[in-house]
Amino acid sequence: MAKDFVTREENYSQWYNDIVIKADLAENSAVRGCMVIKPYGYSIWEKMQAALDKMFKDTGHSNAYFPLFIPKSFFSREAAHVDGFAKECAVVTHYRLKNSEDGKGVVVDETAKLEEELIIRPTSETIIWETYKKWIQSYRDLPILVNQWANVVRWEMRTRLFLRTTEFLWQEGHTAHETKAEAEKETALILDVYKTFAEEFMAVPVLQGVKTANERFAGAIDTFCIEALMQDGKALQAGTSHFLGQNFAKAFDVKYLSKENKLDYVWATSWGVSTRLIGALIMAHSDDKGLVLPPKLAPIQVAIIPIYRKPEQLEAISEKANEIKKALEARGISVKYDDRDTYKPGWKFAEYEFKGVPIRLAIGPRDMENGTIEVARRDTLEKETLQMADIDHKVEHLLEQIQENLYRKAFDFREDSTHRADTWEEFTDLIENKGGFVYAHWDGTSETELAIKDKTKATIRLIPIDGEKEEGKCILSGKPSQQRVVFAKAY
Amino acid sequence: MAKDFVTREENYSQWYNDIVIKADLAENSAVRGCMVIKPYGYSIWEKMQAALDKMFKDTGHSNAYFPLFIPKSFFSREAAHVDGFAKECAVVTHYRLKNSEDGKGVVVDETAKLEEELIIRPTSETIIWETYKKWIQSYRDLPILVNQWANVVRWEMRTRLFLRTTEFLWQEGHTAHETKAEAEKETALILDVYKTFAEEFMAVPVLQGVKTANERFAGAIDTFCIEALMQDGKALQAGTSHFLGQNFAKAFDVKYLSKENKLDYVWATSWGVSTRLIGALIMAHSDDKGLVLPPKLAPIQVAIIPIYRKPEQLEAISEKANEIKKALEARGISVKYDDRDTYKPGWKFAEYEFKGVPIRLAIGPRDMENGTIEVARRDTLEKETLQMADIDHKVEHLLEQIQENLYRKAFDFREDSTHRADTWEEFTDLIENKGGFVYAHWDGTSETELAIKDKTKATIRLIPIDGEKEEGKCILSGKPSQQRVVFAKAY
Repeated sequence: MAKDFVTREENYSQWYNDIVIKADLAENSAVRGCMVIKPYGYSIWEKMQAALDKMFKDTGHSNAYFPLFIPKSFFSREAAHVDGFAKECAVVTHYRLKNSEDGKGVVVDETAKLEEELIIRPTSETIIWETYKKWIQSYRDLPILVNQWANVVRWEMRTRLFLRTTEFLWQEGHTAHETKAEAEKETALILDVYKTFAEEFMAVPVLQGVKTANERFAGAIDTFCIEALMQDGKALQAGTSHFLGQNFAKAFDVKYLSKENKLDYVWATSWGVSTRLIGALIMAHSDDKGLVLPPKLAPIQVAIIPIYRKPEQLEAISEKANEIKKALEARGISVKYDDRDTYKPGWKFAEYEFKGVPIRLAIGPRDMENGTIEVARRDTLEKETLQMADIDHKVEHLLEQIQENLYRKAFDFREDSTHRADTWEEFTDLIENKGGFVYAHWDGTSETELAIKDKTKATIRLIPIDGEKEEGKCILSGKPSQQRVVFAKAY
Repeated sequence: MAKDFVTREENYSQWYNDIVIKADLAENSAVRGCMVIKPYGYSIWEKMQAALDKMFKDTGHSNAYFPLFIPKSFFSREAAHVDGFAKECAVVTHYRLKNSEDGKGVVVDETAKLEEELIIRPTSETIIWETYKKWIQSYRDLPILVNQWANVVRWEMRTRLFLRTTEFLWQEGHTAHETKAEAEKETALILDVYKTFAEEFMAVPVLQGVKTANERFAGAIDTFCIEALMQDGKALQAGTSHFLGQNFAKAFDVKYLSKENKLDYVWATSWGVSTRLIGALIMAHSDDKGLVLPPKLAPIQVAIIPIYRKPEQLEAISEKANEIKKALEARGISVKYDDRDTYKPGWKFAEYEFKGVPIRLAIGPRDMENGTIEVARRDTLEKETLQMADIDHKVEHLLEQIQENLYRKAFDFREDSTHRADTWEEFTDLIENKGGFVYAHWDGTSETELAIKDKTKATIRLIPIDGEKEEGKCILSGKPSQQRVVFAKAY
């Protein structure tokens, strides 16, 4: 199935696209920039959702649902939000179609024009803070710890499946608190949830830090983020957690009466991750044989394939395979026994390898005689023949090993791709020729940041939190700096 | 909390609205016709989703995601679909905002006009069949058994929370099959899934049947449905399963090569239930004390409330309560121990009663002395004092009893509200004065159906599948009929 599949070295961008398409994860739709997430790709998203949702709930959050539409005027309320937020939005102006005069189709009914245009949510702070005004009167109503799973739309000009699409799926948390300290704690808590999820489920190591003013969310006091490194040496922002201060509370006039009977504005956070994470997952682990998935997010963790010539062989093998399947499922492992007679074993091997199934088991007549089974792991492509006895336990253990190995591999890659630059020459050489994360001094101004971006396409991915203090000189301006920041080219 | 809460008899419609608002299920948003689903209401939806999703997956379906936007021209492809489908849709015409000249807000950028308008999906048959064309070449690609959980928009003029909103959440299944028989089997399978869900989870008995041509989905050959009866004697369509024949396959040119090497159009079904089910759930069981929830869909199944005067009493009670909570949770029961000191026990009793929590446990100092606990069930409002020993087992059993009792009560109500009419006088008397389901003969024509609707507001809810054959005369026209159909006023 992967015949016309290019390698990472040949064409990284094409390699990525080929995996998405040929592993049946997603495809472009008839609507420009919008993707169809296919069942196999969507089941990865479902696994991500389940893990994240549990973490949100375990930390006291509930889900809710707010409207898709936002009245245009809401975007004018918070000054920084309206200034800074991208204006590329889908605008609803009419609410009715009618049959065309030739009777063959439909046209927009021009008489059904909205008084005020509605914007498809690009993010929901405004409509949610308009709602919170009704929910919050006193300290008893706080904190509000709400999340929503939703689709959002940003009219992107250049789109790439999962990484940047006009419509995408995400979760957006929106919380309201009595004090600044509590809101800051929430921002940090979620940043840690995101890091834990990325590292323990996606097997992708991430850096944590805070964005510069340039890269900050429009309306936030501070934007915290997790950043991952892809195999081509480019960074990918994998999640953000915003400390919003009292900006939205002031814009939407949301005050609460404190225990001390004082009226004050509420403190806020918002945070989100999206289907973009699937893009990160693909680029972090996959290889020239196709997709590689960490066991914890793999829709199928184990594929069992029978190898046989005669129907009676299949019967005996199937009995054994179903027994193993059952034992694995009892351990919470998802298994596909593929006994389709419409495809040959070799085709199936290639299929599951390309689709990143962590473990493939094969059982043939000789295995039946010897009580053995062939076990192939996707991450290392190693194969070995094991005794069937206790195979469920062995497979469970192997899945854990694969999960760890993928993380370790990605971690080592990131370490190998992380450098320090002390001069402009070192910096440009690293950015141009090596890629990866570059720790360097920066004078703290937006001018310098933008000049560096202009010259090298590298941006400041983050300022490390609790980063080591170190006196130094800005790589471009030579002005003093107290701490290194992390540069990279990015998705 | 329920002070200004009206009874069903006083004002049924107001009663419904009060429950939705005051039990914190949902509220109207700033956008006309769109609701905010609050955390408590949303958690009911999450329970519904989990149960249905499992049933879909157990019957071989997978989830996927298709675009929110549908190009306007797609609606012209399937003739019956364009004719019959409501034209009240949200239309996207522009893709960019810009800062207004006074710098204070945003306006639509008129230069960013779409060449073809995009419609927010009111249902997704068209965009999905456009996609399936790419997925289906041969019989090997069939069946496709796909579902999506999504938001949809229909620009309703008169909206009511959950029952009819401009934006709502739903699931829509879209399947493709080799043969007519297989597609028909799928339609029936899903209708049974819906019935099982309604009866076993919602504790709402439903009738199954097929719609008349008037009430059929635009583009379907047959629309099957489940219909429930509300306490005011009005019917509510709770789910539909459409046999689409080859209509959409023909409109979108989706053919497959059969095993016999013949090219033929694919056979299709589509089916859905929505957040409307929450409206049905409320109206089926709730009473003049507020919401009543069946245990299987209750976000909180058991509330434990401590009754105390002195802090040291609370400490001992809390220890016991947490022990009971743990034992209940070990049985998979969701428990809230409410030890907030900001509210009195009486307030909490009223709160959980109004919010429909199936079982309330109260523990006071005397209970601690006697080893007892007060158990109150929401459905019957009965209270009894039980020995604490083995309380987890007793509660588990009681939850099962409550689930059964609610179903039984709703079933008996429906039976009591189901009548037969043989004459026009009997019919109009029943519809006007008693409500409920009325089984009556109908001559099979749309003209008669519409005339009956005009005169009485009653519609044919369904034609029973495998209904008893019986010679009779149409209640309005007097023409011959072979089978009774089910009439009712409906939501």
